[in-house]
Amino acid sequence: MSKKVYFFGANMSDGDGTMKDLLGGKGANLAEMAKAGLPVPPGFTITTENCRYFSKNKQYPDGMKEEIEENLAKLEKAMGKKLGDATDPLLVSVRSGAKISMPGMMDTVLNLGLNDKNVEAFASNTGNPIFAYDCYRRFIQMYGDVIDEIEHSKFEEVLDSVKEKHGAEFDQDLSAEALKEVISGYKALYNKEKGKEFPQDAKDQLYGAINAVFSSWDNPRAKTYRRLNKIPDELGTAVNVQTMVYGNKGEDSGTGVSFTRNPSNGNKEHYGEFLINAQGEDVVAGIRTPKKIDDLKPLMPKVYEELLEVYEKLEQHFKDMQDFEFTIEDRKLYLLQTRTGKRTGMAAVKIAVDMVNEGMITKETALERVEPEALNQLLHPMIDPNEKIDVVAKGLPASPGAATGQIIFDSAEAAKLAEAGEAVLLVRPETTPEDIEGMHAAKGILTSRGGMTSHAAVVARGMGRACVAGCEDLKIDLKTETAVTKSGKQLKKMDWLTINGTTGEVIDGKVKTIDPELSGEFETLLAWANENKRLGVWTNADTPEDAKNARKFGAEGIGLCRTEHMFFDEKRIPIVREMILSESDEARKDAVERLFPFQKDDFYGIFEAMDGLPVTVRLLDPPLHEFLPDQKELMVEIARMEERNETGASLEEKRELLKKVVALAEFNPMLGHRGCRLGVTFPVIYNMQVRAIIEAACELKKAGKDPKPEIMIPLVGHVNELKILHDMTRETVDGIIKKHGVDLHYMVGTMIEIPRAALTAYEIAEYAEFFSFGTNDLTQMTFGYSRDDAEGKFLTYYVDNKVLPRNPFQTIDQEGVGQLMKFAVESGKRRRKDLVLGICGEHGGEPESIEFCNEIGLNYVSCSPFRVPIARLAAAQATLKNKKKADLNSKTKEA
Amino acid sequence: MSKKVYFFGANMSDGDGTMKDLLGGKGANLAEMAKAGLPVPPGFTITTENCRYFSKNKQYPDGMKEEIEENLAKLEKAMGKKLGDATDPLLVSVRSGAKISMPGMMDTVLNLGLNDKNVEAFASNTGNPIFAYDCYRRFIQMYGDVIDEIEHSKFEEVLDSVKEKHGAEFDQDLSAEALKEVISGYKALYNKEKGKEFPQDAKDQLYGAINAVFSSWDNPRAKTYRRLNKIPDELGTAVNVQTMVYGNKGEDSGTGVSFTRNPSNGNKEHYGEFLINAQGEDVVAGIRTPKKIDDLKPLMPKVYEELLEVYEKLEQHFKDMQDFEFTIEDRKLYLLQTRTGKRTGMAAVKIAVDMVNEGMITKETALERVEPEALNQLLHPMIDPNEKIDVVAKGLPASPGAATGQIIFDSAEAAKLAEAGEAVLLVRPETTPEDIEGMHAAKGILTSRGGMTSHAAVVARGMGRACVAGCEDLKIDLKTETAVTKSGKQLKKMDWLTINGTTGEVIDGKVKTIDPELSGEFETLLAWANENKRLGVWTNADTPEDAKNARKFGAEGIGLCRTEHMFFDEKRIPIVREMILSESDEARKDAVERLFPFQKDDFYGIFEAMDGLPVTVRLLDPPLHEFLPDQKELMVEIARMEERNETGASLEEKRELLKKVVALAEFNPMLGHRGCRLGVTFPVIYNMQVRAIIEAACELKKAGKDPKPEIMIPLVGHVNELKILHDMTRETVDGIIKKHGVDLHYMVGTMIEIPRAALTAYEIAEYAEFFSFGTNDLTQMTFGYSRDDAEGKFLTYYVDNKVLPRNPFQTIDQEGVGQLMKFAVESGKRRRKDLVLGICGEHGGEPESIEFCNEIGLNYVSCSPFRVPIARLAAAQATLKNKKKADLNSKTKEA
Repeated sequence: MSKKVYFFGANMSDGDGTMKDLLGGKGANLAEMAKAGLPVPPGFTITTENCRYFSKNKQYPDGMKEEIEENLAKLEKAMGKKLGDATDPLLVSVRSGAKISMPGMMDTVLNLGLNDKNVEAFASNTGNPIFAYDCYRRFIQMYGDVIDEIEHSKFEEVLDSVKEKHGAEFDQDLSAEALKEVISGYKALYNKEKGKEFPQDAKDQLYGAINAVFSSWDNPRAKTYRRLNKIPDELGTAVNVQTMVYGNKGEDSGTGVSFTRNPSNGNKEHYGEFLINAQGEDVVAGIRTPKKIDDLKPLMPKVYEELLEVYEKLEQHFKDMQDFEFTIEDRKLYLLQTRTGKRTGMAAVKIAVDMVNEGMITKETALERVEPEALNQLLHPMIDPNEKIDVVAKGLPASPGAATGQIIFDSAEAAKLAEAGEAVLLVRPETTPEDIEGMHAAKGILTSRGGMTSHAAVVARGMGRACVAGCEDLKIDLKTETAVTKSGKQLKKMDWLTINGTTGEVIDGKVKTIDPELSGEFETLLAWANENKRLGVWTNADTPEDAKNARKFGAEGIGLCRTEHMFFDEKRIPIVREMILSESDEARKDAVERLFPFQKDDFYGIFEAMDGLPVTVRLLDPPLHEFLPDQKELMVEIARMEERNETGASLEEKRELLKKVVALAEFNPMLGHRGCRLGVTFPVIYNMQVRAIIEAACELKKAGKDPKPEIMIPLVGHVNELKILHDMTRETVDGIIKKHGVDLHYMVGTMIEIPRAALTAYEIAEYAEFFSFGTNDLTQMTFGYSRDDAEGKFLTYYVDNKVLPRNPFQTIDQEGVGQLMKFAVESGKRRRKDLVLGICGEHGGEPESIEFCNEIGLNYVSCSPFRVPIARLAAAQATLKNKKKADLNSKTKEA
Repeated sequence: MSKKVYFFGANMSDGDGTMKDLLGGKGANLAEMAKAGLPVPPGFTITTENCRYFSKNKQYPDGMKEEIEENLAKLEKAMGKKLGDATDPLLVSVRSGAKISMPGMMDTVLNLGLNDKNVEAFASNTGNPIFAYDCYRRFIQMYGDVIDEIEHSKFEEVLDSVKEKHGAEFDQDLSAEALKEVISGYKALYNKEKGKEFPQDAKDQLYGAINAVFSSWDNPRAKTYRRLNKIPDELGTAVNVQTMVYGNKGEDSGTGVSFTRNPSNGNKEHYGEFLINAQGEDVVAGIRTPKKIDDLKPLMPKVYEELLEVYEKLEQHFKDMQDFEFTIEDRKLYLLQTRTGKRTGMAAVKIAVDMVNEGMITKETALERVEPEALNQLLHPMIDPNEKIDVVAKGLPASPGAATGQIIFDSAEAAKLAEAGEAVLLVRPETTPEDIEGMHAAKGILTSRGGMTSHAAVVARGMGRACVAGCEDLKIDLKTETAVTKSGKQLKKMDWLTINGTTGEVIDGKVKTIDPELSGEFETLLAWANENKRLGVWTNADTPEDAKNARKFGAEGIGLCRTEHMFFDEKRIPIVREMILSESDEARKDAVERLFPFQKDDFYGIFEAMDGLPVTVRLLDPPLHEFLPDQKELMVEIARMEERNETGASLEEKRELLKKVVALAEFNPMLGHRGCRLGVTFPVIYNMQVRAIIEAACELKKAGKDPKPEIMIPLVGHVNELKILHDMTRETVDGIIKKHGVDLHYMVGTMIEIPRAALTAYEIAEYAEFFSFGTNDLTQMTFGYSRDDAEGKFLTYYVDNKVLPRNPFQTIDQEGVGQLMKFAVESGKRRRKDLVLGICGEHGGEPESIEFCNEIGLNYVSCSPFRVPIARLAAAQATLKNKKKADLNSKTKEA
């Protein structure tokens, strides 16, 4: 059998950070720190192999004990103390440490090596009897509890009775004498419970602890945890035996925590705190006020110098910002732990870019370091951290950012007030496409119903508006234009209110928000992302403003321009309704023609904003009844008029309207008469849209611009649908181009959003120059989930209870939906080599999904403008990951 | 080049029936008839090769003309007449005849060979100058029109002017002299139009006609038709030159049509009619009353004997019932055409079985001969053909059969009256699950809205009730309980009305209907089907009556027992609503427990009816709001109460109910909180159902019966859903079985009806002992079509305009949905070798879909009881087809 025990400490290490299998996470980490020349309290690690052997054979493997003794001798030599020594004992801690940290394993035992005799020497050596006796009584308690399984409460009983006797309120109020009473009480308890004396021999203590760690691997709690988390039983745990150091030995000792750089803003400075004569917990506990790191300089100049060296060594060794704990014992500095420091998005970007500039890491590593989602913080206004806030309700953090404004309950009114320059916060039970204008005008949106993927949430994220959705704490009464919080607070129209879409908080009154700057480092990082990414990053935008915004963030095209939003404008909706309600083909055509100039203007503006970049326009998608009044409300209105015996034209009109609404109503509008099904059955609408797109493009072309229209036909399920519309489109377009005599390049393609389209992609690719995966709908149909319904009804339950590993509307379900995508990509490419492939579902802005899109070979992802930077970074990371995989594969092949 | 012209007639033939490529369909058929010794007027066929050559080179191939002359000589010799002879001319017809019959090809030219001279001889030879002149004038007209493309109307003008002059109303009123005038008028017209005399040389006439046939192959109409129908241009057409025979030469001549057996009932008798001194058209025209075949015996005993021989020869040769046309010329019998006779379902069955018994065909052939859909006629009541009926409206033939009853507009009332023994016809604008009881009680169902797959149509077909759906001619007013037809006919409650679900007709008053017998031949044929089929044929049945019915038809199990129908019973629905509306878990549990005894009784009855056969029970599937009142109606009710200033408990209750209804409402119920999603989130409901199933089964087992429950979990999309419910089910079931101490075999499986389930079938098969393809929902989701919406909105348009090749809800879409099924079958089988595979969507009863199910290896199909016989036959045909394919493959391999 191989080496059984690994030494670490004092600039030398048998192991290193890569040996987690053998040394466990903790042991490998300690070895790595020591190796890096960091002042780790020395010790040794008994490998996991020994545990495996012990677990199987209920005895130590040959040679293990010998190696422990050897390493112990080495440790004693290094420390100049001996374990169990009567006058100057070496004290150690014993800890378990598996490869994966898991609950159920043995707790730490500290101060091992103390006994009745040497505790006295320890007391006089430290000049601190209270400290020494406290160490001993803690040791007995931990040993008894952790190793011999004596109920914790029984020790507490003993301690409480002594405290009562001496009138001590807290543990630290006990005198040395009182602590001695506790010690003898603990020992008596031990004797009574275990039928033997508390072990006085330090070696007995040590092996007792080692055995306990090994045995804890097989305790039922650990086993259950492993089974549930699919951790193999064969892993085993290592045992770490490490010299004790004390920051609470007196005024020459102390303890602290520090980051190598500022985790809030990323500045390179000594960030952290320490306390003199204290233990680790004291810094965090907040009873005493800790000092800043630089305050150590006057107190212990040498230690301070050592600490500065530690900063350097840590970053040089780990090549990243570190968060570490240190202890000073008798003016000697020890590092107890270090780990990669958590940081804000802003800090992450700054640190990554700075480290590249410092030559510490490569650009690629910098790109890998920043969590794409963390960029969110940099892209939205946030509440000034100096403001005192009064949270009155909480909802779902549906769209990030903070917004402050006056409450308005009606979308049209919100739009009007915003136009007049007011800061408006739109508050609604839920939103519908009719609220779009009001949502756009508002600073933020607050709804009392709906989930993370409700209409309000999706649209707000697309617009980059802050949104708190599904705030059920709030009861909204639209009639009286008031809302009441759970605690009874009344909110009236025009009251000031603030929402934090990043946390879901609803805050009373007007609160100062700050617009984060797009710092230089941020731009630098994203430029590197562009150097590294393979995927194009496009955006979903329906207006010239959104397009401009997205372009500013680096969007390389529009992957989805929804035309239906253009239909809801108040000047247009009457014409749209006329179009829908017209009885004759001529009347319909006439209404459609009146929409034409509006649509042409829309497209003109967008093409202009995206000059030189592709703009994918999706022809009308939603079912027509979405543009009509709500059937239920209309029925109620008519009933009320009837009850009031009203007659006349208005009632008759409403009845006529209701008839049409009923005729158009659908049981499952999601699966109804929409998308290309409308295009095929009412060709005039698509024809008008196609003309508007191409007329606008031709005009721009003549004006010297470079429009790149791509016409996208939605909801195709059978190749014949696409064929019909493709042929109609080409014929119309080519006629217009010829008429204008310009050289306009355009494309015709389709969305792949119906499972059948993915399954028959080979046929469909004959008539599509591009595929754009509409993963929202594709997910709905592949799962059979209505997104509008699932979230509130069962999807949240499914995700919370792990019925589904994650919400498939947030991250692409690779197993199901992804399988269809992959199939469609492969068969589409087989039919048409130069098929352009993109995604325009919301997944196009989600890092894990972007990685998948990169893997299956899409050409671009398209996401809402505010997610473009996130997508750029994620795309770069995906390419880097792929490259690494390829490198690894080629290495494996070579080997 | 090979042989160019093929002779046929007089017991000899150069060709035969297999040579359609070369001789065209008509020519091959004539050759076959002659070969079979049937008295075909002799003639010859110029092969398609000549046409191909002519089409390419605009001239005859070498040797063709010589072969024509040879064959003409042979023909002249056989007939003892000469073409163009002045005293006894041979007259012939010239017809085109491609392999596939197609429009656009040249029409027939009759009486070719007549000219100014020999028409006189023809007149005196026949002793019938009117007949002779009429033949000649017809010949000129046909030749001018068909070959020289002179407008038909110009000939009509000439004819009309002569008729006017002679005061003749009809053509046949013209005297010989008048006909002569027509002839000279025609000839003048010909001369004027073509600038030459009408050809008097018979050979010129013949080659003119042959050229015209060849040229017609390349006329624009024929070319377009071939392009659209993908018929290759290289096919070419043959030309048939055949001796003319005349049934209108006098009292020794005649013509008739006959079937070798009775096409209505299949009896072996001389079925058909003839007329003396008449042409073919006269028999069909109905001006003279034709005589029965046996009436020929006294008139022309020899010819009658010959005819009897023809019956024998035809069936012996073609091995099937034939429909043929004959002509008698001067007491000589000629067969002009024979083809397989169309027949009713009843006749098809009888003929097939009789022919097996007569040793004429094999059982396999008999099975192949009967169109499965034709059995429909044998399975439903039909209107007595002797009744005079008054059709007042027409709708869609949604569920076959006839039903007569008194009009009732309310389902509950219909149920009550039916219980009191009345014959009720349920008339509704549309039906919902709440109408189930009324539909079951009614003799038939008539709706004014909805398509072939509306709720009414689907449920009616399942129940075997006659149904006419979507009868838009009918305006129903539920308030006044009346309906008005388009023509203004008023129909009141309790009026008698009849519907024919096979034709879609709505008939005034009470009409006598007859229940067709399940004849002995029918049972015999189905027994043969069982000997030959591989697929099991199960049924979809929710009640013991349906189960018994299906078993009578040969169902081998229940593939789908829907439990939700059981919830709509009037005693249960209040408890169901209590369950849904309960605020606490206990209250819900309590309501569920009160449903338990009902459910147990339901299952007891069904298991008893299906003793010894598997019964697949699907746990609750629809969303809960289906059991609650309609939201719109409730809102209107409340609004009305509010307007009337009503207050009090009832209003409050309704408001409370509305809140719950709103909370449960879904935008797309089809994709909502239903199926196993309910099972996972409200486990008490499924748990109760599972207990009810197994308790019932255990009780029956104890009573010595053999119940075979299979528990089916619907709407699974992710393996975890199934795992949770599978584990819960097994635990519950095993506990009950243990308690009862019986040896009950049961299965747990799932429906595959969500695309994702098909895509992840490998994972799902771990927890499923069977898969049942729910192709209704699978089609909805794969296409993204809501069945409730698509039909009326765009699907009908799609099918009518060939956007879709067929309605995917009727026949499985093999390309898309079928691809998913195949994938699921293969991956499911890979995971679990003994996985049982079935289908329970409506496709399970549709012959083409059954063939597909057979091909992909399902174990059984399940369909509505009334389609079980159809499915049995279709399953047998599928096996036979497969066997043939396999035989062919192995032959190909050998060769």
